[in-house]
Amino acid sequence: MSRIVVVGGGFGGLHAFRVLVKAGHRVTLIDRNPYTTFQPLLYQVATGGLNPGDITYSLRRYVSTRPGGRGTFRRATVTGIDLDAKEVVVSRGDPVPYDQLILAQGVGANFFGIPGASENARTIYTRAAALQVRDLIFSGLEHLTASKDPDRRFTVAVVGGGATGVEMAGTLAEMKSEALPVVYPELQQDNFRVVLVEMADTVLAPFAERLQHYTIHQLKKRGVDVRLGTAVKEVRPDALEFADGGRLETDVVIWASGVGAHPVVAQWGVPQGRGGRILIGGDLRVQGFEDIYAVGDCALDPDNPQPQLAQPAIQMGEYAARHIIARSAGQDLPPFAYADKGTMATIGRNAAVAQIPPGLALTGFPAWSLWVGVHLVALLGGRNRLQTMINMLFRYVSWPKSAAGIIGDVAEVPR
Amino acid sequence: MSRIVVVGGGFGGLHAFRVLVKAGHRVTLIDRNPYTTFQPLLYQVATGGLNPGDITYSLRRYVSTRPGGRGTFRRATVTGIDLDAKEVVVSRGDPVPYDQLILAQGVGANFFGIPGASENARTIYTRAAALQVRDLIFSGLEHLTASKDPDRRFTVAVVGGGATGVEMAGTLAEMKSEALPVVYPELQQDNFRVVLVEMADTVLAPFAERLQHYTIHQLKKRGVDVRLGTAVKEVRPDALEFADGGRLETDVVIWASGVGAHPVVAQWGVPQGRGGRILIGGDLRVQGFEDIYAVGDCALDPDNPQPQLAQPAIQMGEYAARHIIARSAGQDLPPFAYADKGTMATIGRNAAVAQIPPGLALTGFPAWSLWVGVHLVALLGGRNRLQTMINMLFRYVSWPKSAAGIIGDVAEVPR
Repeated sequence: MSRIVVVGGGFGGLHAFRVLVKAGHRVTLIDRNPYTTFQPLLYQVATGGLNPGDITYSLRRYVSTRPGGRGTFRRATVTGIDLDAKEVVVSRGDPVPYDQLILAQGVGANFFGIPGASENARTIYTRAAALQVRDLIFSGLEHLTASKDPDRRFTVAVVGGGATGVEMAGTLAEMKSEALPVVYPELQQDNFRVVLVEMADTVLAPFAERLQHYTIHQLKKRGVDVRLGTAVKEVRPDALEFADGGRLETDVVIWASGVGAHPVVAQWGVPQGRGGRILIGGDLRVQGFEDIYAVGDCALDPDNPQPQLAQPAIQMGEYAARHIIARSAGQDLPPFAYADKGTMATIGRNAAVAQIPPGLALTGFPAWSLWVGVHLVALLGGRNRLQTMINMLFRYVSWPKSAAGIIGDVAEVPR
Repeated sequence: MSRIVVVGGGFGGLHAFRVLVKAGHRVTLIDRNPYTTFQPLLYQVATGGLNPGDITYSLRRYVSTRPGGRGTFRRATVTGIDLDAKEVVVSRGDPVPYDQLILAQGVGANFFGIPGASENARTIYTRAAALQVRDLIFSGLEHLTASKDPDRRFTVAVVGGGATGVEMAGTLAEMKSEALPVVYPELQQDNFRVVLVEMADTVLAPFAERLQHYTIHQLKKRGVDVRLGTAVKEVRPDALEFADGGRLETDVVIWASGVGAHPVVAQWGVPQGRGGRILIGGDLRVQGFEDIYAVGDCALDPDNPQPQLAQPAIQMGEYAARHIIARSAGQDLPPFAYADKGTMATIGRNAAVAQIPPGLALTGFPAWSLWVGVHLVALLGGRNRLQTMINMLFRYVSWPKSAAGIIGDVAEVPR
């Protein structure tokens, strides 16, 4: 029976792995981390509301408990693909041979070549990055408390008005407007500035206009300085420079402006399209390759492009697995078709937007509850669900004194 | 009304702070971390069983919710004490003036001048140190999986047979003997070595002989290589050298062999005794000082020495607060007397020892349940209790596949 290798233990990779192992195939899952991360809730880790352990799940445990029993896990970073030998080359240990390969390694931040961005801006797309942002923010606030200058300022700029940027800016602004007086009584609200910078004229591009306006209003209500139609020209260590000549002094810049292929993919010899995404066909196989699939954020079918979100990744992962199973039985499948179950984004407590085809649009508490519910269900494992639910419940109920609940150490010398 | 400063937000400092604020005093609490840590459960963080956030509690929250309302928090590292000006000098910001001062800064590891120990050994006395040990251990196990050498080894040596060393060695050994086959199927038990090194001829010195024997038996049963009567002569980056000429190759050395004053205390101008502990009198005031108290691990009354544990710290903190309150009303208190409610130590799942005066000694599941219960009650905050309880329950019930549940990233290049 053929050996299948899945690169990446995120939404796409895990679902492909699960379906294949259940069908009795020999599958090796490779990931650089020994755990999978529920990325949609990383912004909660970055703002002190959740433990990283609440939203990570051990891949060793996942693999050891899959029905089917022929799945294995390999903790390693994929450095290359030997297309001739049909082997995945890894950072440590022997290469991993494959008969079928599913690429599901996701993406990283896309800095669009903007000078200074990759060196000076932070992201919250991984566990480690989210913790780093968290500690920078809370260290920054602590250091502010030791200063007596009434004009002292701590400025966090979030670049990118998509869901990630909106929830980060919204949550930070809630801390500023509601929690500061209770938890940081030494500070005035004006000392903590939260800015959201977006190149387009609106936020949340995939959402209906009404929901976009609602979001902007909610952000401003919470004290976010929303700057639309504002393009970043350069990211300096202590400031943002804008294309229109403007400048903003910053302490922390969070880049939530776009995602793109990990640079190493360029060496793999697979065709790449916009944003470095690997070009696939209607059956999710990489263009020009019979035995290699690509799913999730890292893949792109130019004739049927999918948004880089969790739901498409999950469905693509399952499809690729079913396609492999069908082919091994000499059968075929109709092309992949995404079943859009809806999109949502949270802005802050009780404020969110949800858009469910064909025409349902929700805001406020109903949207927020739906958002919480969907995310809880999607977490791996009962313990994760329970812990996340409890942490978020405590945070919600005892707000604002629950702000800065789960934090790290403060750097003695400011950044 | 006098200004009181409490240095250190651990067991002793927090209880002193609480009593004083409730009595209406103006109190400033200073700690280098924005949170207090429940140190007895740090070994669970170090072995992937708990989140640090489960056992840390925000000091800003603690201070903001104290009845009395005249308490404040200052996040800073104390660098000195100006005894003439009666000010506590801190790393950032203005010095903090005091009329009464309570020193409760605790202690750090005591390396007894053993060469290489402070550079090459790790401790688990702080949140950051426990996380570092956790990531070293799990990275080490991961790297072992990538090697094909049947004689490959990952060795963790724990130096010190007190409660800290015993629970660390016991928990690691359970992972070795019970979890490895499930969670790290690539490894054999022999690949992971857990060694407990103790200079004396027994472990858990404060406990009755019967309980000591039980503990040694339980450790060996779990696969710990217990080396009593073994003194460490030097700690090298990759090995321990013993006084008897022996040598042990090690990957991680955890120093749980003793605690002592933070080095900076020597500059404070207060009298120090054995282990650098600040010398106090029967009323917990520092010898020679009317307005300075010292409580908890950092203090020592040579005529009435207390073990360096949580209970004495709590009682001393409360006593010092009550003494200040009494003096401000022109009254006095009888000398401090420790009410020993018992000591306990855990070894592994279902295995613990508990000693409760005047003569109750427990082992096994009853001791373990008592241990769990007492620790849960002692945690600050309903959320901490609930999260810790849930995490430990899940870990217990789904063991061994729950091993390595809450872990961090793996370093790509081994140590």
